Amino acid sequence: MHTFSLQHLETFTKNILVKIGCPENDAITATKVLLSADLRGVDSHGVARLSGYVRLWEVNRINPTPDIRVVHETPSTAVVDGDGGLGLVVAPFAMQVAIEKAKIAGTGWVSVRNSNHYGIAGIHAMQALEHDMIGISLTNASPLVSPTFSKERLLGTNPISVAIPAKEQPPFVLDMATTTAANGKLEILQRKQQEAPFGWIQDKDGKPTSSPNGVRDGGALLPLGGDREHGSHKGYGLGAVVDIFSAVLSGANYGPWVPPFVAFLEPHPHPVGEGLGHFFGAMRVDAFRPADEFKANMDTWISRFREATPVDGQEKVLIPGDPERELEAERRQKGIPLLPSVEADLKALGEKFGVSW
Amino acid sequence: MHTFSLQHLETFTKNILVKIGCPENDAITATKVLLSADLRGVDSHGVARLSGYVRLWEVNRINPTPDIRVVHETPSTAVVDGDGGLGLVVAPFAMQVAIEKAKIAGTGWVSVRNSNHYGIAGIHAMQALEHDMIGISLTNASPLVSPTFSKERLLGTNPISVAIPAKEQPPFVLDMATTTAANGKLEILQRKQQEAPFGWIQDKDGKPTSSPNGVRDGGALLPLGGDREHGSHKGYGLGAVVDIFSAVLSGANYGPWVPPFVAFLEPHPHPVGEGLGHFFGAMRVDAFRPADEFKANMDTWISRFREATPVDGQEKVLIPGDPERELEAERRQKGIPLLPSVEADLKALGEKFGVSW
Repeated sequence: MHTFSLQHLETFTKNILVKIGCPENDAITATKVLLSADLRGVDSHGVARLSGYVRLWEVNRINPTPDIRVVHETPSTAVVDGDGGLGLVVAPFAMQVAIEKAKIAGTGWVSVRNSNHYGIAGIHAMQALEHDMIGISLTNASPLVSPTFSKERLLGTNPISVAIPAKEQPPFVLDMATTTAANGKLEILQRKQQEAPFGWIQDKDGKPTSSPNGVRDGGALLPLGGDREHGSHKGYGLGAVVDIFSAVLSGANYGPWVPPFVAFLEPHPHPVGEGLGHFFGAMRVDAFRPADEFKANMDTWISRFREATPVDGQEKVLIPGDPERELEAERRQKGIPLLPSVEADLKALGEKFGVSW
Repeated sequence: MHTFSLQHLETFTKNILVKIGCPENDAITATKVLLSADLRGVDSHGVARLSGYVRLWEVNRINPTPDIRVVHETPSTAVVDGDGGLGLVVAPFAMQVAIEKAKIAGTGWVSVRNSNHYGIAGIHAMQALEHDMIGISLTNASPLVSPTFSKERLLGTNPISVAIPAKEQPPFVLDMATTTAANGKLEILQRKQQEAPFGWIQDKDGKPTSSPNGVRDGGALLPLGGDREHGSHKGYGLGAVVDIFSAVLSGANYGPWVPPFVAFLEPHPHPVGEGLGHFFGAMRVDAFRPADEFKANMDTWISRFREATPVDGQEKVLIPGDPERELEAERRQKGIPLLPSVEADLKALGEKFGVSW
């Protein structure tokens, strides 16, 4: 596995995006969002997906020069139409709308339609932090998940991210799929042909399976909880809320109608909305209490949890965001490792578009 | 097990609350909230808790005549001080503030301090439905839950409820603890001395256990997911967000400082805030798109999921809120069954306060 500097991958990604017609500034924004996944260790959502976005553009399912706009608003809400643009560009626009609303109304809530895959949820929620705001980021996604008791795949891995500022402590950043395991983790097991733990997936008949190929063979990822006895109806309920906030509020496709990320699968012939949907929130902490007071209490919260007595065999209790932040510091310094297959894929992409790798 | 009519339990509960000094209207509100738990099948949070509230009043930890008030606000936010009142009264007040904010600003968000146990989360979220709004209700609670890798109990079962209106279909109502299993379910196993599934609890050393007495013996409930491999860090993260929104935003106690519900346990000697905290949200659906359009799409969403092909051995796929609504219809008609111990407890309470049972 070779390792590449952030700058190398940034330049390459930006140049590819400019080649498919993105304006320079949009290419810079999209690159930053995409690479934040590699930096934070969510390798499935980073440069490994660049050629996937390009293939969607090739089949006219991504508009490189979208007219992203607010189509409806109240003092604390807006609906944004992404005009078929890259989610990597639509999402930062929509989150900024939420932040501007929050500056005046205390909070801002934006539902987005006609968008596409937006990278990792966490990076958009974190956009609020520098404004002393809490950021929230949700998105629906290609249907790969079966609700409790369902044979059919009706939901995406529909992540929830919440970013909360602190004072001396680093921020609290939750960024989680509403499934037991994200699809990226399953892909790792597939590559290694290792068994998956029970509770991650079901087979095409809806029976528990540990085959890492379960989803590929017509099965499904399972909602957080795994089975009814362990609370999978809760993971299903959370994924459903993400779907409804992202798409039923905005007029995007929801549930099984969400367009697949992969270009070789056709979108549903009878869509119920436009593109896929996201949902963003920004809450000014001083809309509740003085920011300094809030952040000092967050420091107390974080320290108390981090210093809790760990169970035997574990070094410490983690705060959401700790592992990703530590990895980001390391990868900014030492570079980002890429699988040989990802490296080859990017090299081929460079050759195709005349961009040096 | 005897069965009692809703009206019988309502009259009794209201009369007891008046006896401890609640104004008539507050007693009516609190009774409605408390009994909604019995109607919806969350028996642990209904009349079974009435004597628990009374015992808190006896040790001066509940103020029967609180001056509940907004202490800070912006167009879309408020902080409410519950003045040590019953959560059963404070919560409907705060949710109404959120609804009034939403009427003008599109959404309303209210964080509450200096409150107490507020019954089931769902009933407060559902308060938004008749206004064609989405309702959200969160609360922190007595520390019984260990974060992933922690031996210590630092969080409550911290529920999340989201209520979403539909058109012809009944509303979508998610109401879930952020643990694998709610404490009430464990209490049922304790009474029957049955084993708990692995993934529900850990013992005092932080090891998995199936003993139904695990929590009583110094162990803890586990976050949704159960263990790290099955995503317990996600349940922990969600419970943490509920804690922070409910208490760090409002100035209530958080984490291990949350005062216990039971009167025989003393609150923490060095509190970090006042009472416990809640968080409420109300979003006008027409702040995003016309209400009729939204609700028609919710009907499509709900029908599609309910009609999904079920796995073998299951009758159908459920929509969040289905089981509780069905039980409510049944119990309104046939009455509410009470365990002999609960019946005896209420009878004794009636004798103590001169209220006929």
